[in-house]
Amino acid sequence: MKTAITPTRQEDYPEWYQQVIKAADLAENSPVRGCMVIKPWGYGIWEKIQQELDRRIKATGHENVYFPLFIPLSFLEKEASHVEGFAKECAIVTHHRLEGKDGKLIPAGELEEPLVVRPTSETIIGHSFSKWIRSHRDLPMLINQWANVVRWEMRTRMFLRTMEFLWQEGHTAHATEEEAVEEAEKMLEEYRTFCKDFLAMPVICGEKTPQERFPGAVTTYAMEAMMQDRKALQAGTSHYLGQNFAKAFDITFSDTEGALKHVYMTSWGVATRLIGGVIMTHSDDDGLRLPPRIAPKQVVIIPFLTKEEHNESVMKYANDLADDIRAQNFHGHDVTVVVDDRDMRGGEKNWHWIKKGMPIRIEVGPRDIENNNVCMARRDKGHKDKEIIARNDIVAAIVPTLDDIQNTYLEQALKMQKENSRSDIADFEEFKAFFTPKNANKPEPHGGFVYAKWCGEDSCENRLSDLKVSIRCLPTEQSGSEGTCVVCGKKATIDALYAKSY
Amino acid sequence: MKTAITPTRQEDYPEWYQQVIKAADLAENSPVRGCMVIKPWGYGIWEKIQQELDRRIKATGHENVYFPLFIPLSFLEKEASHVEGFAKECAIVTHHRLEGKDGKLIPAGELEEPLVVRPTSETIIGHSFSKWIRSHRDLPMLINQWANVVRWEMRTRMFLRTMEFLWQEGHTAHATEEEAVEEAEKMLEEYRTFCKDFLAMPVICGEKTPQERFPGAVTTYAMEAMMQDRKALQAGTSHYLGQNFAKAFDITFSDTEGALKHVYMTSWGVATRLIGGVIMTHSDDDGLRLPPRIAPKQVVIIPFLTKEEHNESVMKYANDLADDIRAQNFHGHDVTVVVDDRDMRGGEKNWHWIKKGMPIRIEVGPRDIENNNVCMARRDKGHKDKEIIARNDIVAAIVPTLDDIQNTYLEQALKMQKENSRSDIADFEEFKAFFTPKNANKPEPHGGFVYAKWCGEDSCENRLSDLKVSIRCLPTEQSGSEGTCVVCGKKATIDALYAKSY
Repeated sequence: MKTAITPTRQEDYPEWYQQVIKAADLAENSPVRGCMVIKPWGYGIWEKIQQELDRRIKATGHENVYFPLFIPLSFLEKEASHVEGFAKECAIVTHHRLEGKDGKLIPAGELEEPLVVRPTSETIIGHSFSKWIRSHRDLPMLINQWANVVRWEMRTRMFLRTMEFLWQEGHTAHATEEEAVEEAEKMLEEYRTFCKDFLAMPVICGEKTPQERFPGAVTTYAMEAMMQDRKALQAGTSHYLGQNFAKAFDITFSDTEGALKHVYMTSWGVATRLIGGVIMTHSDDDGLRLPPRIAPKQVVIIPFLTKEEHNESVMKYANDLADDIRAQNFHGHDVTVVVDDRDMRGGEKNWHWIKKGMPIRIEVGPRDIENNNVCMARRDKGHKDKEIIARNDIVAAIVPTLDDIQNTYLEQALKMQKENSRSDIADFEEFKAFFTPKNANKPEPHGGFVYAKWCGEDSCENRLSDLKVSIRCLPTEQSGSEGTCVVCGKKATIDALYAKSY
Repeated sequence: MKTAITPTRQEDYPEWYQQVIKAADLAENSPVRGCMVIKPWGYGIWEKIQQELDRRIKATGHENVYFPLFIPLSFLEKEASHVEGFAKECAIVTHHRLEGKDGKLIPAGELEEPLVVRPTSETIIGHSFSKWIRSHRDLPMLINQWANVVRWEMRTRMFLRTMEFLWQEGHTAHATEEEAVEEAEKMLEEYRTFCKDFLAMPVICGEKTPQERFPGAVTTYAMEAMMQDRKALQAGTSHYLGQNFAKAFDITFSDTEGALKHVYMTSWGVATRLIGGVIMTHSDDDGLRLPPRIAPKQVVIIPFLTKEEHNESVMKYANDLADDIRAQNFHGHDVTVVVDDRDMRGGEKNWHWIKKGMPIRIEVGPRDIENNNVCMARRDKGHKDKEIIARNDIVAAIVPTLDDIQNTYLEQALKMQKENSRSDIADFEEFKAFFTPKNANKPEPHGGFVYAKWCGEDSCENRLSDLKVSIRCLPTEQSGSEGTCVVCGKKATIDALYAKSY
């Protein structure tokens, strides 16, 4: 069977991913190395993500702010492990004007202190916190910003890893360790339910190993989603920063007894990377599939303008239906409908929307008018699978159908995750076999999530790199049972999630 | 009379402006020269502006996208007057990592081609348009982005002129000059009605003189608002770019006859500068005044917790009222209410909200409960001016009161503009006298808008710079009558708006 996307997932997953993005017109590579241009359909998904996440972030008591793009080099240096983690991937502004020289423009006006384009904002926000926080009455301090950040990545891939990306970063300060840890865990839980309920993307939450911690964090919590090639995608992180930044930036408060103490901090973020996760979780060999709740639009009406003499009545039938849907109060359900009135064959339009992942397509043609019907196609079903629905019933069918599509995507993703998760792999040979593709030159989708014990040693973790496997997280629910480390075979109690990853 | 803000507008307008921002906790200077930190109350205003402007931009057919922060130097160079206009104020990225040397971190990994941090995005978007546009069917192309931009300004002032600022920039391409000019004018008109209806800020629209054009534009349209020190603030611009960028980036389309033609383009933007305009249009010597439609919150309920034994019932009375307001369907009116339950004297809370410009304050205390009343204070009235309203009537009074405050602010701004506008100044001596402060060392608010003729010569425009006056725009409505240039006295037909400006 011919598919809309060439190659298929099975044939060449990484290339399939690029082709899905292209076919859906989500984004494209820009002339600036590692940066992308996010096009309307892709940016529309981001707007949906922002809308809902922003609502959740505010509902949990955080306020939005905006901090400068540039960070003085001296700020970055204040927290030793933080600067070590980011030094190799910082874009640095060194000049502030251009000057003509030999008919060429060259950088001029050298800065006394270079400025780093923010890779993340703990340092510059820490500096402000040290001025804003005086007393226990100022705590907790709960802020968030929506911003662009830059990390000079060498190997980039659209949405998943780009030099510049869009994200939100929450930053909080608390009077006690307990409260800060609770905050970091709470925000990860917000992310988890958001991914499940909106992106239809189930995630596994847990702690990162010490080697995988965010530079400057005491604990990094993360959520990991399984993509259709069975690799893990780190979809979001939440960090308990302890007093590391509080000490580096001298952020103190006087407690109820008047004693001066350093605050405990957190930071947490998700990025446009989530869009990459959505694409790789749900799409098929016909292109993008979008969960209705984050689709920029939910319904397209496609008038089939086959015979000149019917065109006017078909267009009217289509527009009337669109108006009816728009006039309907769906009680908080977000339903945006578009009529595709382009001068183009109906089948071509149909494929256009299939590849864009539009949840519901409604085709109308002369025969539908005659029978007072419409023809509805759902993106979660095969492209030939269509349903005739009475014109009188279609408006009421929209929301239940969208909900059903949303649920189907979540169930399929859960099924994929379950079918490719193993908790019965006991020794390293079996483990290696599981993670080894049949064809090393052109690896097919293989491997998956392995739940197994880890002894806690860095050396075991490091042995995994040859396999391109890593410990994705130590899942939140730890059994506490005793077993043997899947790598070295020694006694171990820690439950770990092993996988290949993006 | 003591005022909440020291100095007053009359005493020292620029310092008053800084103190209003500080007292309302809108923003503060950051350690990065010329950049600011936008705090929750200030960012909340920006979110309101974004929400409504985004709605208008989409309603007029534009789609949101996102382009990279960095622009290759070679792109900027392609349009000669564009690069000339921006070369002196560009932040330039020259390195992509930090390296330790003699115990210090220094920039390393020099880029082959420096990257400019976008001062505006015509060039990088032009490059994409050249790939996206093939046929007349691809036109008009109507896009917009919300982004941060950087212009290395030497003299900065919070919101009004900062090195980094937030804005939206619309970019469009059209098949004909006529259509492009219409677009540029239409978007300026959208800005104008937005300023009037949401910011309660009346603006004068018109064309910029050739010397004041955006670098690369054929025509720059602008809107100018009068601040309370009678200076003009350029609140937004819309540019007809002609084929300048189309030729520089080879953006062509095949028309209906198959002939290859260059497109006609526009760009238009407004920025966080609008917040500075709102502050300077409406605030008084007690601090910020916010038009209800862009206030982050509209109503504060202040429980007066004067006697321990009443506190519980006062808090319940306050919270019940807040719940009643929240439960009310205001039919699209945005009403957010907050209960200020901080452990602090009622009078202190009151001043806190006056300085923040909260439109409506509702005080409740033990006596109000007894009489089943509340005490309402409006920010558009004096701070002692309060009104007793029956508890049963207060909820219904909210929206009409907010509308009334919104109208009052607009009327006051119109009155100020009118009272300080002159169209009867005929010669340059009178003109100079009008724009000369009584005390040159500490200029009081003086001058205003002068509508007078201009002969069209650069030389006359240049003579104004000693007075720190400029031609703000050539108002859209031109009388066409003949008169004499207010500067040189020669025959002139062009109507011009002269003013000092930010």
